[in-house]
Amino acid sequence: MALSTKDVTVGQTFEQLLVEDLKRTQLVQYAGASGDYNPLHTDEVFAKEVAGYPTVFAHGMLTMGMTGRVLTDNLGDGRLLSYGGRFTSQVFPGDTLTATATIESIEAGDDGPVAHLTVSTTNQDGVVVFSGQATGRLDP
Amino acid sequence: MALSTKDVTVGQTFEQLLVEDLKRTQLVQYAGASGDYNPLHTDEVFAKEVAGYPTVFAHGMLTMGMTGRVLTDNLGDGRLLSYGGRFTSQVFPGDTLTATATIESIEAGDDGPVAHLTVSTTNQDGVVVFSGQATGRLDP
Repeated sequence: MALSTKDVTVGQTFEQLLVEDLKRTQLVQYAGASGDYNPLHTDEVFAKEVAGYPTVFAHGMLTMGMTGRVLTDNLGDGRLLSYGGRFTSQVFPGDTLTATATIESIEAGDDGPVAHLTVSTTNQDGVVVFSGQATGRLDP
Repeated sequence: MALSTKDVTVGQTFEQLLVEDLKRTQLVQYAGASGDYNPLHTDEVFAKEVAGYPTVFAHGMLTMGMTGRVLTDNLGDGRLLSYGGRFTSQVFPGDTLTATATIESIEAGDDGPVAHLTVSTTNQDGVVVFSGQATGRLDP
């Protein structure tokens, strides 16, 4: 699937449930997939007793990666040109995350139209955990 | 581990081997960990015969996530404030990726010193596959 300029309008939003009741096991899966084995994310005893956190917490880039699905699922894969943002709050086991992406503008790029989007992810309490921006190629 | 302003200087670089001979299995692991099951990344038949790619390729955010390790491993975890960049070339099974991060500046932030970094990831042929920028908190 790939969006064309005919399919989208400036101001259009996409919303996506990213994860419901995040499990510690997903943090372990992400550690294995990414190679980031920092025990803050997977070792409850280390996170609490050594590092002083209330519990393990998600890798920021897991939150960012899950958030990216609202972009790649809607723009089509291989079309994301740039992506970035700020980690504004920690994500803990049990959290439910929802991402919203908004098309802010569409410009003519060297290789065809480019959509500029903002993206924001909130937890079940309405706290923003990640907010960023992205660009993606559109079909003409 | 957490860097302080005493440990770093502007212009300092960190280099890290991210992955040697990337396996298709890691793409499957990342699909499971992130929930991004687009078959372009895990289904060789779909990627070649339906989508016309030479083979499956890595999720851009897997590359970005692996690249992030050069930041979190060196800045200390929970210290990455923002991170973003451009996906400049695709990453395929068999690739070996190396990331380099450079401290471009250090500024006084509201909550203490903040390092501004650039980051770049290249494959075994010297092709840049991801380039970006990040900010992270330093100890005073």
